[in-house]
Amino acid sequence: MRHAVDLNKAYRLLNHGPTVLVSAADGNRRNVMAAAWAMPLDFDPPKVAVVLDKSTWTRTLVEASGRFALSVPCVAQARLVHWLGTHSGHETDKFASGGVQALAEPAARSPLVAGCVAWLDCERVAQPEQEGRFDLFLGQVSAAWADTRVFSAGRWHFDEAPDSLRTVHHVAGGHFLAIGDAVEGGGD
Amino acid sequence: MRHAVDLNKAYRLLNHGPTVLVSAADGNRRNVMAAAWAMPLDFDPPKVAVVLDKSTWTRTLVEASGRFALSVPCVAQARLVHWLGTHSGHETDKFASGGVQALAEPAARSPLVAGCVAWLDCERVAQPEQEGRFDLFLGQVSAAWADTRVFSAGRWHFDEAPDSLRTVHHVAGGHFLAIGDAVEGGGD
Repeated sequence: MRHAVDLNKAYRLLNHGPTVLVSAADGNRRNVMAAAWAMPLDFDPPKVAVVLDKSTWTRTLVEASGRFALSVPCVAQARLVHWLGTHSGHETDKFASGGVQALAEPAARSPLVAGCVAWLDCERVAQPEQEGRFDLFLGQVSAAWADTRVFSAGRWHFDEAPDSLRTVHHVAGGHFLAIGDAVEGGGD
Repeated sequence: MRHAVDLNKAYRLLNHGPTVLVSAADGNRRNVMAAAWAMPLDFDPPKVAVVLDKSTWTRTLVEASGRFALSVPCVAQARLVHWLGTHSGHETDKFASGGVQALAEPAARSPLVAGCVAWLDCERVAQPEQEGRFDLFLGQVSAAWADTRVFSAGRWHFDEAPDSLRTVHHVAGGHFLAIGDAVEGGGD
């Protein structure tokens, strides 16, 4: 049910503002964290921006490996997202402890999270000064995938799938909002 | 129905990833554009990041004035958001042409858009190199407001108001998704 997304459409996976999971690996060290502060930065080649606090183990792995992945979680994973956002990889290997499953995608160069509805594999665009000053990391998307049940032909279509597959948008303190229904603005 | 939002809660106005309207004024020149690529960057003092293409008149005004505002539009404004996102201020004064109404908020230093559900008045944090290379602009929030019908005590509560007040999240080409229902991740 997973398909590759054309790179020139990859920005659409983040365009509506979902909370994401940020993962990275360096050798046999790996970690994943939750981040509400992520957005597209460019269309083609696609780039993304994400805020990674200095205290996070994921950031250390991004700096060491030069890569990260964004996985877009869904309603069925809300408790997992909150758990990932409130536990540090400094203390426990979140993958090994069984809380989160890695997705077997041979073409991915960073770990992807199973059960999500979209994934963006990214190469860090190193900007040491702005990373240090603002915790702001940029990446160029090298590959992207989506769950065909909710994203195909370059478009999200949540209304045709179970509500458990809708993306989640963090408000605060473990409270999320699911993405809702279509609204037409007079487009093509 | 509009109230000031504590600055340390201002990030919550953008945390769930809504599409925003970016406005700026310099002297008697003013403009407003739509932007799906905006996010919080820091908690306190609150900062935001937004992508402003080199072709936009709004960017010229941000660079000239050192300020901008983000207004968070709602379902009732979906056609307006699409119109603002597809018409350039180089061609027409979008405020004067009657398509969009400015909000009378004496404390705001950039124009705010009436009918929206939240507003963040920002001072540009100038980063000429990254602005030039990535079209990425940063701002520090100097004041924020929200519509009490959908945001109060530091929280969104869309379920207690008409659906026309839900935020909109751009997918592509004038197609939006409204924010949906609450999902608990096990928070406080």
